[in-house]
Amino acid sequence: MSKKIIGIDLGGTSVKLAILTTEGEIQEKWSIKTNILDDGSHIVPDIIDSIKQRFETHGLTKDDFLGIGMGSPGVVDSEAGTVIGAYNLNWKTLQLVKEQFESALGLPFFIDNDANVAALGEQWVGAGNNNPNVVFMTLGTGVGGGVIAAGNLIRGVKGAGGELGHITVDFDEPFACTCGKKGCLETVASATGIVNLSRRYADQYAGDAKLKQMIDDGQDVTAKDVFDLAKEGDDLALIVYRHFSEYLGVACANIAAVLNPAYIVLGGGVSAAGEFLLDGVRKVFAENSFPQIKESTQIVLATRGNDAGVLGAASLVLK
Amino acid sequence: MSKKIIGIDLGGTSVKLAILTTEGEIQEKWSIKTNILDDGSHIVPDIIDSIKQRFETHGLTKDDFLGIGMGSPGVVDSEAGTVIGAYNLNWKTLQLVKEQFESALGLPFFIDNDANVAALGEQWVGAGNNNPNVVFMTLGTGVGGGVIAAGNLIRGVKGAGGELGHITVDFDEPFACTCGKKGCLETVASATGIVNLSRRYADQYAGDAKLKQMIDDGQDVTAKDVFDLAKEGDDLALIVYRHFSEYLGVACANIAAVLNPAYIVLGGGVSAAGEFLLDGVRKVFAENSFPQIKESTQIVLATRGNDAGVLGAASLVLK
Repeated sequence: MSKKIIGIDLGGTSVKLAILTTEGEIQEKWSIKTNILDDGSHIVPDIIDSIKQRFETHGLTKDDFLGIGMGSPGVVDSEAGTVIGAYNLNWKTLQLVKEQFESALGLPFFIDNDANVAALGEQWVGAGNNNPNVVFMTLGTGVGGGVIAAGNLIRGVKGAGGELGHITVDFDEPFACTCGKKGCLETVASATGIVNLSRRYADQYAGDAKLKQMIDDGQDVTAKDVFDLAKEGDDLALIVYRHFSEYLGVACANIAAVLNPAYIVLGGGVSAAGEFLLDGVRKVFAENSFPQIKESTQIVLATRGNDAGVLGAASLVLK
Repeated sequence: MSKKIIGIDLGGTSVKLAILTTEGEIQEKWSIKTNILDDGSHIVPDIIDSIKQRFETHGLTKDDFLGIGMGSPGVVDSEAGTVIGAYNLNWKTLQLVKEQFESALGLPFFIDNDANVAALGEQWVGAGNNNPNVVFMTLGTGVGGGVIAAGNLIRGVKGAGGELGHITVDFDEPFACTCGKKGCLETVASATGIVNLSRRYADQYAGDAKLKQMIDDGQDVTAKDVFDLAKEGDDLALIVYRHFSEYLGVACANIAAVLNPAYIVLGGGVSAAGEFLLDGVRKVFAENSFPQIKESTQIVLATRGNDAGVLGAASLVLK
């Protein structure tokens, strides 16, 4: 029997774990709650305990495994195996994660940030078809990303490679971004960004679109509402959709001019809008890409959803 | 004596050749004219003859060399060692360049496109300080580029990686680009682009700036004229300079958000404007980059000028 890998996707509310084959097949997955009390000092011991317990239940030992891979929020030093500034875990000081895992379990341990790891998951056994040139963009509360080019994860000189949410795309009346600058992709293409756009264009809109009424009524409008209304032909929702598509499509085209990836994979909650979202983005992408790129770079939806994290984490062990 | 490398930079008017050490030191360089007659069929034989002659003069044999590297215009298939569509060489059909060199000289032969090769030269022994994460942008008649990320040249899925001149940056009143789309960086940041901008802003300008007079007089204005006048404080030239800086600075910031390179190296004729050009671009870059990027990615001038080609070509042999 060939050896297995453990993949861990560490999040602020839960930790997802999986046992996988070296081909990226998930044989078993489970999750535990993330206990962020006491400066997050229980997190790593809890995960280690959960793995040990699983070993016992199944009669497994460390010899059945090649290693452990993990995706983490915060600033991850993948060489040193440390994490700092993961505020949703209460990890404010430097955490020696690799050291803790390796001494407790005796298995090689690899770690990278959660966006990079999700990118690796989609690239390996998701929409990326294991192509060596794949860009992953996650459209959630914020916009994150990961870049795989010439077969390598691109971390850049200080680990800030793949920060696709902070590409500047809005120049006319840019919203302020949490990063301190203005006009970031995240301010117009995340779930929050779509709400930003809805408010902006509602202010300029005089008709009787349903989205306009909802906003004027002070209802909580979500990205899903906007896409659903746009699909139904709501006038204002379509204006928002067109601007969203313009910003995201140009960002994708500009990423493609730099990297010419085989796929730009869109994931995260906002991407649930599916083919409708793709249609708008692809149109703008084509208008803003020169022929060679247009013919060779495809914009596609993520296929592995929440599993991308454990899959990509596991792939770290194989690099 | 350790073995040497031959670097070749093939251009439309001349071919630059050099003998280099494995440390990137140029021991000897020379050039020959590019004879593009008869569908460019003399080009490769001419280069081979020139190398053979050099071998004879110096009493060298193929055993003194590790291999030959070459940068070429056109669409280069670096795996197959072929070139097609290099119109300034009259190479319209597929050229089996690698095959010709290897059978004539008996040395391993490597080839990539000229922009990639210049990028490798600057990355290896130029402004890139041999850092594994370097982006090179050449601001000449057009805007070209090359990307080295995680130590690898990024060619992308169809060789169109690093096409930095076709990043879309101008949305308001975009100029048409030779690539078929509009608003490309090349239309506003190349030598031609700066002339484009001068004409655009001259049309909107009512004052008595010298640049305005030159344009109204129908004089041929060059990028150098514009930068020289801007340095002297010419009103219109400064408007052009600010817009040029805005476009190029945003493009650099967006490249950096994707790749977080240690250096973005600016080369080509336009970069002769030197520190003055850097000042404008760096200011906009800082405004459009989030903290981690701003602190770790530097915009610098190329240092190897015309030698970048033969240096980068030689580096192909060492990969």
